Amino acid sequence: MQPNVKIIDCTIRDGGLVNNWDFSSEFVQDLYYGLDAAGVEYMEIGYKNSPKLLNATEPNPWRFLDDNFLREIIPEKKFTKLSALVDIGRVDPNDILPREQSVLDMIRVACYVREVDKGLELVQMFHELGYETSLNIMALSSVPEHQLIEAFDMIRESPVDVVYIVDSFGSLDPKDIEHQVKKFSELIPNKQLGIHTHNNLQLAFANTLTAMRNGVVFLDSSVYGMGRAAGNCHTELLVGYIKKANYNIEPVLHIIEKHMLNMREKWEWGYIIPYMISGILNEHPRVAMAYRSSDDRDQFVNFYDQVTTPEASLSPTSKS
Amino acid sequence: MQPNVKIIDCTIRDGGLVNNWDFSSEFVQDLYYGLDAAGVEYMEIGYKNSPKLLNATEPNPWRFLDDNFLREIIPEKKFTKLSALVDIGRVDPNDILPREQSVLDMIRVACYVREVDKGLELVQMFHELGYETSLNIMALSSVPEHQLIEAFDMIRESPVDVVYIVDSFGSLDPKDIEHQVKKFSELIPNKQLGIHTHNNLQLAFANTLTAMRNGVVFLDSSVYGMGRAAGNCHTELLVGYIKKANYNIEPVLHIIEKHMLNMREKWEWGYIIPYMISGILNEHPRVAMAYRSSDDRDQFVNFYDQVTTPEASLSPTSKS
Repeated sequence: MQPNVKIIDCTIRDGGLVNNWDFSSEFVQDLYYGLDAAGVEYMEIGYKNSPKLLNATEPNPWRFLDDNFLREIIPEKKFTKLSALVDIGRVDPNDILPREQSVLDMIRVACYVREVDKGLELVQMFHELGYETSLNIMALSSVPEHQLIEAFDMIRESPVDVVYIVDSFGSLDPKDIEHQVKKFSELIPNKQLGIHTHNNLQLAFANTLTAMRNGVVFLDSSVYGMGRAAGNCHTELLVGYIKKANYNIEPVLHIIEKHMLNMREKWEWGYIIPYMISGILNEHPRVAMAYRSSDDRDQFVNFYDQVTTPEASLSPTSKS
Repeated sequence: MQPNVKIIDCTIRDGGLVNNWDFSSEFVQDLYYGLDAAGVEYMEIGYKNSPKLLNATEPNPWRFLDDNFLREIIPEKKFTKLSALVDIGRVDPNDILPREQSVLDMIRVACYVREVDKGLELVQMFHELGYETSLNIMALSSVPEHQLIEAFDMIRESPVDVVYIVDSFGSLDPKDIEHQVKKFSELIPNKQLGIHTHNNLQLAFANTLTAMRNGVVFLDSSVYGMGRAAGNCHTELLVGYIKKANYNIEPVLHIIEKHMLNMREKWEWGYIIPYMISGILNEHPRVAMAYRSSDDRDQFVNFYDQVTTPEASLSPTSKS
């Protein structure tokens, strides 16, 4: 086990993709103070994208984080640091305060490999504002090797603190993860590594453990696995399984019994057959998510036929 | 991937521990012909223990398999072979027909390491009757090394075809499995190996893949994971993920949509917090199963306190 391992709980950020960030302030507070009591090092409290750039018509405080609002929710910062995720082209640099004026400690930049240059520009800016930074390279399972090598050349020269391996489609297995971690370690030896998994194949926890044992320091997870589609590695598994002196599973169990069971009744995530199928096929879960919203949601054979028969299609844009 | 890998579906046998084998004949038939169409090599259709030795007062055809009854259920055997499990001291040798008169192809003997001598006596008898045989060493995670070494000395000399690594408590992780498989391979090189996992920590599939990649040939699983407490490795994951020409996931998806969703509503198995806790603590799930049957079933913090506080106890015999 790694004594320097760090958990980043993504329940609000990735879980918000399940319920359009319909989280009560009470829940977010219980989560923050619970994760703090559990010894979890970071909580990603949402996205810091710009409502203007996304043409948002409704308020959505966890999607469009605002420092004044955050200070009301978390008036007293404790051990657990706060992070926010931003997307390329959706964040307005003018929205970002210098770190000493912000409740946030870390800003993570999600990007596809073809946008790494743009991602690193944002990283540079957040770094100069004093934040810890990460670059989260999405959809790693479908990145061509040469593109990754080019990206690494840029990353090595950047001040980014952490580079993430993101299994967006939940299609990688522990052997794949070991291979990726070794490649990242070899080619960007000056960077700490992170891992973000999805549970389509029930491999999120195993993949995260494999990453940790191969030197990855930053481990993403969500309480009870709450995250888009099949969800993420479960925070309670990491806190319960990793031998680190300050980890304590009981506050996480309390969050689950107080909130997550009801939330799971209301919203759907986890090991669900269409998400398993999209994982096996190494595809984005959006087609499966649309199918789960249709009347055919439990017609698994039909779904499988549609996504594996070239001439069939669920909708004109379903595979785009 | 291993071209010679073989799946043994345990839905009826291990799943019966969830619902007291309350399976309709239609379900068992759909399962058999579905697994056959999926290319699954074996189906474990129940226990062949003796109702007399267990003082059974009710008929329970999947717990006390009878060849005449089985012939009615599966009048036409296909590609998929049938196996049955027996327990030491619960099977009457007089109940076992010679293989050529039986619907069964394989008899598996479950035993604890201290009973390996008795287990191998049964194996010898079933072998002489013409069956394929396995010895399934349960509760491996709590077996002292020297006992295992002594057991191996006996196993090497036995005609048993397959020796199983059984993670009864669902407490092992892929690194543990790799260690065990290497030890078994080294010390009983003349035997094929099998793996039977439980999903308490969401590691059943990862552990099974790890075993396969280290040379294990016989992989146990259940459709939709149906098995005692946290359940088993999922058959649909193995059939969908392993690259073997004759595997086809669609018939398994059909079983899930036709039967398993309703069965999961009626009966409980899978990743459930008290089972996760018993996995982390490397304990038999019986205490957690009792807790899930009580009014406190969702009081996870209370459960954790009870099983981790030495002076507390859920019942006088709960930890025996």
